[in-house]
This record gives sequence, C-alpha cells and structure tokens, in this order.
Amino acid sequence: MTSPPFQTVGVIGLGLIGGSLARDLAERHVKVIGYDRDSAVVKRAERDGILWAPESLADIRAADVVVLAVPIDDALRLLGKLAPHLTAARLVTDVCSTKATIVRGADTLNLGRIFVGSHPLAGDHRSGWDASRTGLFAGARAYVCPSPTAQESSIALAESLWRFVGAVPERIDADSHDREVGWTSHLPHVASAALASALAGAAIGRDRLGSGGRDVTRLAAGDPGLWTGIALDNATQLLPAIEAVERELRGLREALARGDSVAVLKRFESAHQWALDRRG
Amino acid sequence: MTSPPFQTVGVIGLGLIGGSLARDLAERHVKVIGYDRDSAVVKRAERDGILWAPESLADIRAADVVVLAVPIDDALRLLGKLAPHLTAARLVTDVCSTKATIVRGADTLNLGRIFVGSHPLAGDHRSGWDASRTGLFAGARAYVCPSPTAQESSIALAESLWRFVGAVPERIDADSHDREVGWTSHLPHVASAALASALAGAAIGRDRLGSGGRDVTRLAAGDPGLWTGIALDNATQLLPAIEAVERELRGLREALARGDSVAVLKRFESAHQWALDRRG
Repeated sequence: MTSPPFQTVGVIGLGLIGGSLARDLAERHVKVIGYDRDSAVVKRAERDGILWAPESLADIRAADVVVLAVPIDDALRLLGKLAPHLTAARLVTDVCSTKATIVRGADTLNLGRIFVGSHPLAGDHRSGWDASRTGLFAGARAYVCPSPTAQESSIALAESLWRFVGAVPERIDADSHDREVGWTSHLPHVASAALASALAGAAIGRDRLGSGGRDVTRLAAGDPGLWTGIALDNATQLLPAIEAVERELRGLREALARGDSVAVLKRFESAHQWALDRRG
Repeated sequence: MTSPPFQTVGVIGLGLIGGSLARDLAERHVKVIGYDRDSAVVKRAERDGILWAPESLADIRAADVVVLAVPIDDALRLLGKLAPHLTAARLVTDVCSTKATIVRGADTLNLGRIFVGSHPLAGDHRSGWDASRTGLFAGARAYVCPSPTAQESSIALAESLWRFVGAVPERIDADSHDREVGWTSHLPHVASAALASALAGAAIGRDRLGSGGRDVTRLAAGDPGLWTGIALDNATQLLPAIEAVERELRGLREALARGDSVAVLKRFESAHQWALDRRG
C-alpha cells in the first residue's frame, strides 16, 4: 500500500458508512477525527484507538479531508456550520445517496472549489456504529460527483480516498447520478414499498408469500426515515419514474379488464425481454 | 412407503410439472399413461421406462386418476374432450395456478363429483420435459380445491396423490385460493413486470441495478405466455389488487410532489412494518 495523499480525515457521523470508513482509515494508519451526535460512540471509538475525539466542531480545521457521513438534511445543515472552519481542507465530501442538492449547497456556501460529493454503494439493511466494520467498501462502486467549480486536485483526492479503502471510484455529474440512482435504486425501493403497503392493506402477511414475492418485497424493509430523506431529495428524478410504473400497471390492468390477451402478452414480453437481457 | 390408493395415473402434458409427477410416480412403481402434444417427448419418456404411450385419448379410460398438466386454456378444452372417456376415473385433477375457472368448467361438464383441482407450488423459471425431475414436489405446498359437488373419496384421493410424491396438501375452496394467489403470487409478478417495463422504457439495463433492484425485478423473467393465461384467468381477483398498488404509488408520488415528509414517512413506515412482521 502506498502512503495516502492525505494526513488527517475528519469523519462526521459514525454510522455504518462513517464508522466503517473510520475503521478502514485507522487500520491503514491514517489519523481520524471523529464526530457523532452520540458522544458514547465517539468515546468507545477513541478507546478502541480508531479515532481522536475533538473538543468542538472548530477542531475540524486539523483535517485536510472532511467526510460528512450523515443523512442529507443533516449534511446540508452541517456544511453551513463547518464552512468557517474549513480553511485548511483540500477536500470536503459526503456519502449521501443523492448528489445534486448537496453539490448545489456546497456551491452556495462558496465551498465548490473543494467539494466533491461521493456515493459509495456499500449500505445494507443494518445501520449504526455497531454495524460498521473494516472492508465494507472493498470492491464497491463509489460515485464521485464534483461540484462544477471543484478543482482537479480535490477530485483526484476524492478518488484516492475511495481507492484507498478498496472501492472503485466512478466520476459522474450530480444530475446524471441522481437520475441513474433514481431509476436503478430509488424506484425499485418505491415499487417494493408500494407492493408491501398494498399487501398490508389487504391483510396479507409476508409469511404467505412464496420466494418470488419475498424477493419483490425485500427492499420494503429499508429504514423509513432514511428513505423519506432520499425520496424527497430526489423527487425531481423520482416523480416521472414512479409515474412510469403507474402507467405500466394501469395499462396492464386495463388490458386485463377488457380481456385483451395480445396486449397483456405484449406487456409481459417486454418485461421478460428486459429481465433476460444481461441477466446478471 | 405404503402402496398408493390408485393403480394407473394418466398424466396429460409432460412439461416441468407433469413430467416431474410422471417421474415421481414411475419411481414409486405406479403405472403412468403419458400424453404430450410433442410425440417425441412421449416416446423418449416411454423408452426411459417412465410411462406407457397410449394410442388415443380414449385410452385414458384405463386410468383411475387423471392429471391435466397443461396451461389453463388447454386444460378447459381437454376436459371437454376427455369427459366421455372418464367413466372409470375416481379423480380428475389439474395443476393450474388458478382454480375457480377450471372447477366451474368441470361442474359444467358434469365432472364435479370426481373433480378436485390442484395447485402444487413447485414451479421454477425453467419449463418443459427436459426441466422435469424426480423430487420436485418434496416439501412443497399443494393446494387442493374440490368442486363443490366433489365426493369425499375423490378429495381424499387428491390429497393422497400429492402426499405420495412428498407434497403437503392444503384444502381450500377455489375462490379463496384464487384470491390468495392473486395477492401473494400474481400481484408480485405484475409489480415486478411493471417495474421492469418502466425501466425498459427508460433504457435502463438490468446490469445497472444493484442487488436490491435485481431482487425486485427477478420475477419479471417469468414465461410471458404462461403469465398472460394466469393473469387473464384470475383477472377478477387481480384487478383490485393491481389498483391497490397503483393507489399506493400515486399516494406516495403526490406526497413527494408536495414535499409532505410526514405523509411520505408514514407510507414507508407501513411498508417497513409489514416487511419486518414475520420476516421469513
């Protein structure tokens, strides 16, 4: 392992993502300054030798890289509070699932030059410090979404950070990122949740589903608070995507209602073809 | 293994279900009369010692149990053709995913006394004789839906048949069955297919989805022709179920559009609660 192009990383929020990042960095002998609203977590992490517990938010000035590992609403709020103390930082990034809002927020705060949003695809159903672990990012894709005004050295630094913990950075502009995840991640969650809610409404328990139905509804178990933040923040991309699924359902339902077997078959065939294409 | 309460089973349709049933019965020394529209399949199965290839449909009179293992439309048509030759049969059953139509059809043909529909939950994505295998039904639930006029001995025979090949019979009336599978099996397929079609329409390839999105869209790969038959036959139960999912999607979309975080959270929470309940 070559030595990293950064000395001290400030990690704000020690949940699954922030905690795992702190552990990976500590294991690779990078100094970590760690913040969490739960001071007991910070103390335990410090006792375990993973990080240094700062006195105040102002101590973040010792970090050359700052990572906001909190939900999108908190990240925006924190960015404003941190701004005065980021004089020495060469990179500020985050790990939220949506990127347009935070990148725009950083620009508004005049942090665009050093702000490069990140979105590592490394979550799972668990959350919190206790779920965090080393190696979480190994082999995972990490989207890297620079502010339009970001300097090239900060972008390179963000890519280095993710490569350093084993992830594979992929540069993409924030709007394209949000459209991509809107369709590939947020829409499947919404569809899964809508099916789950409909089944709940019909008083059909999950234990009555077969393995296929359990697959379709698995994502519905995701954390409601987190997903509310994601869906609201990415509403611009998500609304037309949800409408597209509604259109497909309505079209199929109307074809069924009029007994139009040709139209029903055509719809199931388009879904089937898509599913067989690069099945993965 | 105790000896079965039947001597000769006529299996009509040697696909995944019919073929596997024939194999299981042959392995347990029950004589099988096998039919398939593909005569080469029948010849191969006869050469392998699994069944006896009859000369004509009339030869079915040698069977005391007759199993229609073909799609619903063919099953209804065949039932009419077979009726004159079923004088010796003590049980006629089928393996279709929907039960109200076929049970009603059997009654119309005056076969109600010996007709007990079946629905073994043992399919997978493969189909045809080549996919058939012994042991397919081991441990699987097999719904058993008697005609309202069925004699108790025919019902008991249907339960014996499924127990004999390792399945677990569960008696349920045809309408309750169709409502149950409409919500637990057909609706998840429809939701998965609608999402897949929407993604196809947005030119988002399946390889761009994460593991969660792949779970949600897995069922969309199912055989379009088979699912068209199922959905049309169970339209009565399926239409209000599809509408319920549409309502959930529209409600979530409207809450997102007006930025109503309380309403969005409430919807994700209902889905989350349902998914955690008896998680399975």
